[in-house]
Amino acid sequence: MMQITTPTLILDTEKAKNNIKWMEDKAAKHGIRLRPHFKTHQSAEIGSWFNQGKKDRITVSSVDMALYFAENGWKDITIAFPFNVLEAEKLKKIPSYCQIGIIVIELDTAHFLENRLDREFKTWIKIDTGYNRTGIESEDIEYIQVLLDFFQSSKVMNFEGFMVHSGHTYNTSDLDKINKIHRQSIDKLLKLKKRFGFYYPNMKLSIGDTPSASLCENFEGADELRPGNFVFYDVMQYLVGACSADQIAVAMACPVVAKHAQRNEIVLYGGAIHFSKDQVKHPEYGVIYGLPVYLSNGKWGQPIPNSYMIKLSQEHGILKADKALMDRLQVGDVIGILPVHSCLTADLMKSYQDDEGQVYTMMNSPS
Amino acid sequence: MMQITTPTLILDTEKAKNNIKWMEDKAAKHGIRLRPHFKTHQSAEIGSWFNQGKKDRITVSSVDMALYFAENGWKDITIAFPFNVLEAEKLKKIPSYCQIGIIVIELDTAHFLENRLDREFKTWIKIDTGYNRTGIESEDIEYIQVLLDFFQSSKVMNFEGFMVHSGHTYNTSDLDKINKIHRQSIDKLLKLKKRFGFYYPNMKLSIGDTPSASLCENFEGADELRPGNFVFYDVMQYLVGACSADQIAVAMACPVVAKHAQRNEIVLYGGAIHFSKDQVKHPEYGVIYGLPVYLSNGKWGQPIPNSYMIKLSQEHGILKADKALMDRLQVGDVIGILPVHSCLTADLMKSYQDDEGQVYTMMNSPS
Repeated sequence: MMQITTPTLILDTEKAKNNIKWMEDKAAKHGIRLRPHFKTHQSAEIGSWFNQGKKDRITVSSVDMALYFAENGWKDITIAFPFNVLEAEKLKKIPSYCQIGIIVIELDTAHFLENRLDREFKTWIKIDTGYNRTGIESEDIEYIQVLLDFFQSSKVMNFEGFMVHSGHTYNTSDLDKINKIHRQSIDKLLKLKKRFGFYYPNMKLSIGDTPSASLCENFEGADELRPGNFVFYDVMQYLVGACSADQIAVAMACPVVAKHAQRNEIVLYGGAIHFSKDQVKHPEYGVIYGLPVYLSNGKWGQPIPNSYMIKLSQEHGILKADKALMDRLQVGDVIGILPVHSCLTADLMKSYQDDEGQVYTMMNSPS
Repeated sequence: MMQITTPTLILDTEKAKNNIKWMEDKAAKHGIRLRPHFKTHQSAEIGSWFNQGKKDRITVSSVDMALYFAENGWKDITIAFPFNVLEAEKLKKIPSYCQIGIIVIELDTAHFLENRLDREFKTWIKIDTGYNRTGIESEDIEYIQVLLDFFQSSKVMNFEGFMVHSGHTYNTSDLDKINKIHRQSIDKLLKLKKRFGFYYPNMKLSIGDTPSASLCENFEGADELRPGNFVFYDVMQYLVGACSADQIAVAMACPVVAKHAQRNEIVLYGGAIHFSKDQVKHPEYGVIYGLPVYLSNGKWGQPIPNSYMIKLSQEHGILKADKALMDRLQVGDVIGILPVHSCLTADLMKSYQDDEGQVYTMMNSPS
């Protein structure tokens, strides 16, 4: 383990590899193909831990991320974001050995791309089954028909299937509710498949969120699973119930810079520019920004009881500490903080360090 | 203006320069010395717009930031963060022409530094006057005395004075309340000056937050002013009342990727990895993540009425739009979003672009 002097994102490689294997085994057991979302780790090195090192099917969230992974050898990449026509030109940089899937949910986008793309793209229609972020409402048969008619005569957009991201599973920790959302989403896609399957017998149905992928056991009807966060998990997933605290594979090592005994608070070097500022409501603690763990040679155990991050500013993190933690931690010590949202934390930190001091770079890591 | 294809942070250099001049004139009028906080822009280029290009007194929030500005020629830098003893070694890299100020509020830190520092440092005691983030409570005379006794015999730590950051001004938009917090903070520092002034007749009192610096007119007793955010301002400062919307000098240019007419929402390429996830409560709209403006050749006007960012995920930004905006914006258009917290947004974006396409780099800009 290298000497920690500033906030450093520590990766427990064993936990991450176990998380990957667990999800791959689960997908195999259910006969559903896994297309893991790489937006969480954004790292070619970590990406090679998936799929026994075979670089094929993955999901990413931007054209730039597709370029990064394509240049690193991945051959089949879905860009799971409503296609941004302003980046059409950039698609020409994708190496020809890499097949790209795009999402098209606007007829304007389809028209624009028809004249700009110089090769064929797998084309998905994103369906909104209740999360209400984006996608076409599953009941809007008329508009879906218009898009499909367009794809039918398109020279570059080959309709691949319907996809959904049921992000509303994050709003509950009730397994029954998660199962219900999950089932409703698949059923809505199946209804569309029934409606349009005659013309597209090979269409695929793709589903995505980490809580469903982790917790649900009925994937009947779905062809593809696109979870991402499960590689590291985080406090949000832990509170949803999608993972145990043990499965969280990243922790921020933060130096202790001050103690305020009269209010049981410890000031850490580790703030919003390290963690991001996603928050989550803890059933006992209220709104929190992370949970502390004792670090020992780059490994850690369970969250320390009755202790949590209550505030972040640009560089400061404020840790509310129980008495044992207050007594034990001294200025100059380093403590681990499990992040609320590992995707945003990883994106900010731009690299990971394991317990042997090895550094794993990611897209846009400073050289 | 360069072609925008992905979220891009646009800087209105005229507004930023006016904000700087306005604050410099105000400080001069009140006879208080300005030591601007450079953690907002983190850019040597933008830093040179201050103080008629003279690179002397500034504030930063980390040792790394001190190193960056020292290497870029600044000569007198206060690191306004409780000193992290694990970075003591790094202070040796600061060029000798640069004087460094540090904050010491822990006796353990003082003891540690006494044996590690190889030259003299201006040493500040941070006082907590009610914000309750960090600092020694102004009533804790006994502990302050212990620290001062230590500095008295220190070979490397020269006591410079007391500083405060009254961050609790951000919790109100009531000018009377801001004035009251501001005055109480200065008065508490003055009380300490009275108590310890006999031994330190040259001690300085330094105050910091942008709302007070922008709004208050009575700085009597304070020697130094350390605001940072005012160079760009943002929606949070606008809602506090610390600036007009006109003064906000940065806007994120975001491509439109989808429209959802049935709920008056527009999906933008621009999410938590671009804006950060700071939120603010708008008196009419509730919790928001930014305000839209029409961009025209890299300039913009007032926020568009009845329209606001209601949700951010990793790459998606959801804009609630009034009817005129819904009708006007099309897929492939670019709209500007004024950020809630410009410091965190700038830190994520790592560079700025002005209306002529010139790019301003900052600390840790990708090369």
